[in-house]
Amino acid sequence: MPQLRQNIILKEWVIIATERAKRPEQLKEDKDINNVKLPEHDDTCPFCAGNEEKFDNVTELYRIGDKANWKLRVIPNKYPALAPLQDGIRINTTGYMRWMDGIGNHEVLIESPRHNLTLATMETSDIEDVLFAYQMRITTLMALPYIESVIPFRNHGKRAGASLIHPHSQIIALPVIPKDVISRMNESIRYHEEHRECIFCKVLQSELESKERIVLETDHFLVFVPYAAYSPFALWIYPKRHASSFCDVEAEEIKDLSVVLQKSLRKLYFGLNDPDYNYIIRSAPKGYSNSAFFHWYITLIPRLTRTAGFELGSGMFINPSIPEENAQYLRGIEI
Amino acid sequence: MPQLRQNIILKEWVIIATERAKRPEQLKEDKDINNVKLPEHDDTCPFCAGNEEKFDNVTELYRIGDKANWKLRVIPNKYPALAPLQDGIRINTTGYMRWMDGIGNHEVLIESPRHNLTLATMETSDIEDVLFAYQMRITTLMALPYIESVIPFRNHGKRAGASLIHPHSQIIALPVIPKDVISRMNESIRYHEEHRECIFCKVLQSELESKERIVLETDHFLVFVPYAAYSPFALWIYPKRHASSFCDVEAEEIKDLSVVLQKSLRKLYFGLNDPDYNYIIRSAPKGYSNSAFFHWYITLIPRLTRTAGFELGSGMFINPSIPEENAQYLRGIEI
Repeated sequence: MPQLRQNIILKEWVIIATERAKRPEQLKEDKDINNVKLPEHDDTCPFCAGNEEKFDNVTELYRIGDKANWKLRVIPNKYPALAPLQDGIRINTTGYMRWMDGIGNHEVLIESPRHNLTLATMETSDIEDVLFAYQMRITTLMALPYIESVIPFRNHGKRAGASLIHPHSQIIALPVIPKDVISRMNESIRYHEEHRECIFCKVLQSELESKERIVLETDHFLVFVPYAAYSPFALWIYPKRHASSFCDVEAEEIKDLSVVLQKSLRKLYFGLNDPDYNYIIRSAPKGYSNSAFFHWYITLIPRLTRTAGFELGSGMFINPSIPEENAQYLRGIEI
Repeated sequence: MPQLRQNIILKEWVIIATERAKRPEQLKEDKDINNVKLPEHDDTCPFCAGNEEKFDNVTELYRIGDKANWKLRVIPNKYPALAPLQDGIRINTTGYMRWMDGIGNHEVLIESPRHNLTLATMETSDIEDVLFAYQMRITTLMALPYIESVIPFRNHGKRAGASLIHPHSQIIALPVIPKDVISRMNESIRYHEEHRECIFCKVLQSELESKERIVLETDHFLVFVPYAAYSPFALWIYPKRHASSFCDVEAEEIKDLSVVLQKSLRKLYFGLNDPDYNYIIRSAPKGYSNSAFFHWYITLIPRLTRTAGFELGSGMFINPSIPEENAQYLRGIEI
């Protein structure tokens, strides 16, 4: 019997399609991860060390390491979705065609000078640098008066929307708060008003008690398959300590998170043969940091299924796998 | 300068990324539509005429034509996302793991006995049959006491989630109203409360006045690229007469719609080389038919771009094309 499960935070129903459910093994990518031959350096890659000047004379926004021997760099996206503020923002909020200037920031975080690494195959200390760089950039961008929300995300592989192989993340800073983010805030405020508790803390506690969807646990973090996961092997990485903004994560927690994030990615890499994936850091938009109701976390989504007309038409998802089975499978992957 | 445009109905912002915008010609599929060689009949296709008994002894839910010489059939999906009602629905609405039995209907509408046709290449009268069949099935499914909403949709091509080539649509009938659908209802109710007018009727009127996003117009329908289109060449097919449910569309309008839908699909087929696409009929859920605030319509989405981490993380879309340019291009495609 198929099951409808409700995402308790957003109140969205998900179909767990048991009749068409695939076993974890069936969802593996058809790829030989032991035989991937990518060069350490690619002359045509704009992100490779040594190619900086050839491709662009861009202003570096952040760097770890020397200019000639960098470990990580943040630069403006060459084809930005939004443009930096110049002479103010023109806005039209009347009539049926409402618009504003597409002001904002679109940055690329180059995670390594090496072309053929990825987070699953880097040193844990490199991932710590990446997480620290996210924090620095989010903090800087959130301080801009015209920015309302910052979305840090990573696209890995073509199906996840990545156009370049070189390991990188992106950060988009917006002059608005996206509707989905507003929804998440509103629903968590409503829950808090009713129960005087953080819904995310309650979900965390309930997952710790039930245990069946846990993938891994450390002192500071819990990684689990959400009860109402929208797609196979979707993971939530929840901090145990309540905090609304990723900027408030402490150094010791960042260190722990670098291990947790890498372990999660390695389980996907070895367990499912390096699937394409996206992850997003859901950190509080402006005005919501230090709130009792919102709790930052990371969503990690392997792109193993496609969204079709039903999903586009309803906003509702069909998950052709069983969250508890997914979690059990990933727990068993040795890394 | 990029632009943020607001979907006036859902109040969602979309980024029109002018800096990375592609010209219509650049978005064409790399496909030779004059050289597609598919057989009229495929022995291995479960939807081809003559293969009915070989694949399944399914109960036919609806048919146009004789049993041996059918023009169109509706059958249950072999791998349904939801199961038909048997002994009642078990529901748990307490605690943090809320679920209900996955009760509902999942049907396949086989649009033609011929394997190698698609709506863009069929006779208009065949499309009239398809539309009429949607009406029949929606009406029947909506009458079931446990069904709250019905989502009729079509997936064309792999990127749109279609697993079989044979021309077909699907209908999913749900025991819940999806959150996106509730949102659309709530926003249109709110607009109606404030202005005593249907927001969809107002958008229609405003598009008729501005003209720049119109693709085609008939007595009963207007096809246009939405002002805040989420993706390139997205189209809305709006009926001019206000009605909330697709079931209330009259025979003469269905005839007109078959022409309008086919022309729209042919413009995509010839103008963009048969791109993969989804369309969805947005018809009122139970309890909202005959409402003054909701107006049914069709959303048609060519799958020319991919959703990446940003879209998944924010629910906000980046459209790398300009709606007015898309409309102008499609107006110019002779069919």
